[in-house]
Amino acid sequence: MTTIGLLHPGEMGASVGAAARANGARVLWASEGRGGETAARAAAAQLEDAGTLRKVVAASDVILSVCPPHAARDVAAAVAAAGFRGLYVDANAVAPATSREVAAIVERAGATYVDGGLIGPPPDKPGTTRLYLSGPQAARAAALFTRGPLEAIVLPGDLASASAIKMAYGGWNKGQQALLMSIVALAMSAGVAEALMAEWQRSQPDLPKRAENAARGSARKAWRWIAEMEENAAALDAAGLPEGFHQAAADVYRRLAPYKDAGVPPTLDDVAKTLLGGQKDEAR
Amino acid sequence: MTTIGLLHPGEMGASVGAAARANGARVLWASEGRGGETAARAAAAQLEDAGTLRKVVAASDVILSVCPPHAARDVAAAVAAAGFRGLYVDANAVAPATSREVAAIVERAGATYVDGGLIGPPPDKPGTTRLYLSGPQAARAAALFTRGPLEAIVLPGDLASASAIKMAYGGWNKGQQALLMSIVALAMSAGVAEALMAEWQRSQPDLPKRAENAARGSARKAWRWIAEMEENAAALDAAGLPEGFHQAAADVYRRLAPYKDAGVPPTLDDVAKTLLGGQKDEAR
Repeated sequence: MTTIGLLHPGEMGASVGAAARANGARVLWASEGRGGETAARAAAAQLEDAGTLRKVVAASDVILSVCPPHAARDVAAAVAAAGFRGLYVDANAVAPATSREVAAIVERAGATYVDGGLIGPPPDKPGTTRLYLSGPQAARAAALFTRGPLEAIVLPGDLASASAIKMAYGGWNKGQQALLMSIVALAMSAGVAEALMAEWQRSQPDLPKRAENAARGSARKAWRWIAEMEENAAALDAAGLPEGFHQAAADVYRRLAPYKDAGVPPTLDDVAKTLLGGQKDEAR
Repeated sequence: MTTIGLLHPGEMGASVGAAARANGARVLWASEGRGGETAARAAAAQLEDAGTLRKVVAASDVILSVCPPHAARDVAAAVAAAGFRGLYVDANAVAPATSREVAAIVERAGATYVDGGLIGPPPDKPGTTRLYLSGPQAARAAALFTRGPLEAIVLPGDLASASAIKMAYGGWNKGQQALLMSIVALAMSAGVAEALMAEWQRSQPDLPKRAENAARGSARKAWRWIAEMEENAAALDAAGLPEGFHQAAADVYRRLAPYKDAGVPPTLDDVAKTLLGGQKDEAR
């Protein structure tokens, strides 16, 4: 039986951990320094609490890093410092260059690196979510998900192809939502939001709903999309493409970050007002 | 009978001129300095060639400016220099601040300003296209289009509301197309374009077609969308919103500008390659 250390059981991580269990693995996590919600998610997913990160590392054949993108390097550094020499899978939304940095960190400690990219919601049922994998040892990581609700897909090519497809997929999805909300805010600031909605109803009838869904769906996650958009900007820049779309999207999500702990999702109207007021608090 | 000077009969302008004729107006244009395609479009729309801009201005009650956004100020300045004192309607895709500059230019000469914004394709048939109008005299401009295929809509509020709704509408439409094409180029640069298309087919099945349509539909118009995206960036910036989306979109369309004279629209594949190669020619 393979033992997997899952860092950490956020919404996505806990569900990925459960998917690995469904494939027959033992899945560990580390409660040290984590809150009650994380513990509840880990318990619901039947993950085993090893206590500390050091104990997780010592007991695991595989480390699966599923965390907000701004934490990807730190998780890798902590795992490397604990002397991990197994298979390290980074499934985070980071630029290919960041993925290569993470690879270097864990490989210096003697681990084997596989790049990953998760596309879709937490895989609570089959068919919704893919784990893209790349690098010479990608097939070993894919073998952890041959059964269960998470579909693993090995990409040919570069070590960091899995991060690249995640940057492309999320870069459209989260970039366009930020653009759409900004456009609604622009219309609001000019007093033409109602006229815009009426025009959209006639010529682009899906947009009012999409804008409302973008606001409701993104605001409470915005705090962890800031770094993802910065990774996207870096990915486009490294390819010689304009980075401005995702720098702007990062700015949008920075302004929405205070919704992290909102009990209910805000409306589009709320979000547009926040975007218009937000620049006062920004160091621009 | 109202005499309208139409500057200039591009694709959109000629069609708007024909719509004004359908409402009973006499519509003049100025062939001086214009090419054979413009003349052919003007003739097809049954516009009357007055020869020079000065003669158009002298004979017209109304000047209707329909031109690429980067030319909006120059057209206004030329009309003002010719001493126009009638109704000046700027229907161009410019930022509200630019619209106010154009207003100042023509009002100094004694003209009355109305702001306009065209949404939709050239109005060759009813129901496709709106001319939004704003400012104290907007109703006078709307009266020129009570019949015929172009629907005039008067917006309440600020002088430049019509430009604002155009910035919002086009800012989404052209901004998202630029983002979508950039994302495909990013995937191509990392060797994951096919994998991205396969993922989109499963989870966002409209996107491959939308990306292809964006490339085919935008590339040959990109030369005149550069300034429009810059106007958009200025509009968002003036509202305290991030300008990066549209600075990036302007960069995208700058790279695609050489398709202006392409005989057939390029494919998505061509466009993605052009975007990836384009930065070599850029002063960044």
